Amino acid sequence: MIYLTRRETFNAAHRLFRPEYSDKKNLEIFGKCSNPNWHGHNYTLYITVKGIPNSETGMAINLKELSQIIQKYIIEKVDHKNLNTEVDFMYGRMTSIEMIAIAFWEQLKQPILAIGAQLYKIRLEETENNFVEYFGQ
Amino acid sequence: MIYLTRRETFNAAHRLFRPEYSDKKNLEIFGKCSNPNWHGHNYTLYITVKGIPNSETGMAINLKELSQIIQKYIIEKVDHKNLNTEVDFMYGRMTSIEMIAIAFWEQLKQPILAIGAQLYKIRLEETENNFVEYFGQ
Amino acid sequence: MIYLTRRETFNAAHRLFRPEYSDKKNLEIFGKCSNPNWHGHNYTLYITVKGIPNSETGMAINLKELSQIIQKYIIEKVDHKNLNTEVDFMYGRMTSIEMIAIAFWEQLKQPILAIGAQLYKIRLEETENNFVEYFGQ
Amino acid sequence: MIYLTRRETFNAAHRLFRPEYSDKKNLEIFGKCSNPNWHGHNYTLYITVKGIPNSETGMAINLKELSQIIQKYIIEKVDHKNLNTEVDFMYGRMTSIEMIAIAFWEQLKQPILAIGAQLYKIRLEETENNFVEYFGQ
Amino acid sequence: MIYLTRRETFNAAHRLFRPEYSDKKNLEIFGKCSNPNWHGHNYTLYITVKGIPNSETGMAINLKELSQIIQKYIIEKVDHKNLNTEVDFMYGRMTSIEMIAIAFWEQLKQPILAIGAQLYKIRLEETENNFVEYFGQ
Amino acid sequence: MIYLTRRETFNAAHRLFRPEYSDKKNLEIFGKCSNPNWHGHNYTLYITVKGIPNSETGMAINLKELSQIIQKYIIEKVDHKNLNTEVDFMYGRMTSIEMIAIAFWEQLKQPILAIGAQLYKIRLEETENNFVEYFGQ
Repeated sequence: MIYLTRRETFNAAHRLFRPEYSDKKNLEIFGKCSNPNWHGHNYTLYITVKGIPNSETGMAINLKELSQIIQKYIIEKVDHKNLNTEVDFMYGRMTSIEMIAIAFWEQLKQPILAIGAQLYKIRLEETENNFVEYFGQ
Repeated sequence: MIYLTRRETFNAAHRLFRPEYSDKKNLEIFGKCSNPNWHGHNYTLYITVKGIPNSETGMAINLKELSQIIQKYIIEKVDHKNLNTEVDFMYGRMTSIEMIAIAFWEQLKQPILAIGAQLYKIRLEETENNFVEYFGQ
Repeated sequence: MIYLTRRETFNAAHRLFRPEYSDKKNLEIFGKCSNPNWHGHNYTLYITVKGIPNSETGMAINLKELSQIIQKYIIEKVDHKNLNTEVDFMYGRMTSIEMIAIAFWEQLKQPILAIGAQLYKIRLEETENNFVEYFGQ
Repeated sequence: MIYLTRRETFNAAHRLFRPEYSDKKNLEIFGKCSNPNWHGHNYTLYITVKGIPNSETGMAINLKELSQIIQKYIIEKVDHKNLNTEVDFMYGRMTSIEMIAIAFWEQLKQPILAIGAQLYKIRLEETENNFVEYFGQ
Repeated sequence: MIYLTRRETFNAAHRLFRPEYSDKKNLEIFGKCSNPNWHGHNYTLYITVKGIPNSETGMAINLKELSQIIQKYIIEKVDHKNLNTEVDFMYGRMTSIEMIAIAFWEQLKQPILAIGAQLYKIRLEETENNFVEYFGQ
Repeated sequence: MIYLTRRETFNAAHRLFRPEYSDKKNLEIFGKCSNPNWHGHNYTLYITVKGIPNSETGMAINLKELSQIIQKYIIEKVDHKNLNTEVDFMYGRMTSIEMIAIAFWEQLKQPILAIGAQLYKIRLEETENNFVEYFGQ
């Protein structure tokens, strides 16, 4: 069993807030991330799959296929977008790195299974100082 | 003469567009950066000043003072903000990295002179693949 | 369950040696790190906590609170300090990255529990070529 | 138990292909990596060992000894070499990052045991976007 | 006048040697880089152009156009290639980073002029420790 | 004319202070860097030389020779050392990055001329946020 990781990047706008909170409460809990006029990030995404290297090709998964899946199910939907208002799989969810990573897992799990590999980890970096890792449960 | 550089970072939303252009023309010229719902970046900013090291302290400029000036005139105004709508010195300007860098120069030139150093260069990185440098003319 | 990591940095002096060893034996075992006049590093510290994202805020832990804890219990005590002589929780301990990481774990475990999260991993980098990871046992 | 990692780098040429495949099939499966005239990479290698810090030295393993082992069993054999034709332990194997990482594990496991530590993980990066991790099974 | 830089990467094989030298002399002068079986690198390329930001778009050059030019005149010709035997504009030239950077300048100067900007600098990194910069003369 | 840069790293302890100042004044001017018990850094050093590529070898300077000079005149004298008390060419000088960079220039200028190249720039990084550049005057 080997673990293979592909890095991708995207740029997006977002805001952390709850509509039922007052502006003051949003600011208290979410700090500067609650700015109603949005802010944004260069997100760095690491997708790790696990699998057994194919005895003929020596590859656990075809990296080109993996990259195409990440493009189709994630990057095309989030790159240069507003994560709160324009991304179907984020509707009704907080756009914290925790919730984005969980949503990415749900987006990628089946398509990766369909090419014969198993999604192992989502790592999502919001800045050089903050990142999350999610293993599906 | 020595050149001293301080790195700072900030996160912001922006959009490239001209209101008098059609959506189609904006998309054609500015690509994905014209998205009306915003997107954003982790900007990395390098401020370079030049000066002669003080014979007693060995320092060309006090880095703590330089950092405070950058905080006051730049970071507090742009961090977690919308560069198109919330930053006074960007009103009426395109938020391309070129124009942001030039605006930063204008913000910093006098305050840095006031502490006895000379602004030499603004370097502004929008992503790991794109950056500009501006020398004041 | 999600794993959230905060990066912090600090600069410190240290020395690897045992007072009961001869200078020659210290040099043999600890190499250049045994220099009696000290040397130092830019340490990079990654604190990973695990938790379940709050259903209202979408956050497993408030990052600002986590950062404040790391500042109070670690950074303020070690930044621009001598790890061998000035840091209370390192008294009587070797200042190898292994022992520093273990000491950091002991410092952070309770304060992080007190804000409702669980410390999962300490990762401490001494140079770009050497780092340790500690999981508490 | 603590996990200690040493980073090393090397530069090498390689090619992904199977001699019994047609050029067209090689290109289809391995893409540009099948170029018959070779291409190459700056590989970055992270060797992680686990151990209990020695109560006298505070070190889980002597990093200088670990580095010497990696030099002898890996770097001297692969640096500035052709991985397909010049590296004894790669004969008859595909030079995918998966297979290289597994081969490195086999090379290092015993020598690291012999200095009293236990190999825990091989991480091998081929580019800033692709890497694998192998834990020995 | 503003300076705008685009980063691109490519992977290639190469060898430093002169056919009229003996193997011994090649090894003496070029070291491990003279290996007859090739080795390779992940090259990082920074293309800097200078120009005056357009008063309407705020951009000194259209980055998408610049990237297309670099793709067409450089990346498609060198990525996953052997720099000594497969790249037309390197025939009869040493594949040192110095000579590659000069050849890249010659490739890019006219096409960049043709889109209204001026090539200012080629920066080519061979490893994290070695790079060259070329300004056209 | 081409500019070639070699990166080297070293770890050292230092302190910014003037013996004739009171502790309070030292703290006021030099901040945490005045700690009497030392602190330290992982310094990153970039040495840039300029020259014309040799028509036979394609190289402006032999990188191995350049690296040996930097090792001999700089790294062996400063690595794992105390910059204030153990480095001959720093005696009586402040150990600010400005003054260290100027001292490195003086150390390297002649030896680099002696191998037929010309020192162009010293870049010295103290942390990821602070660095200086010195061009010899």
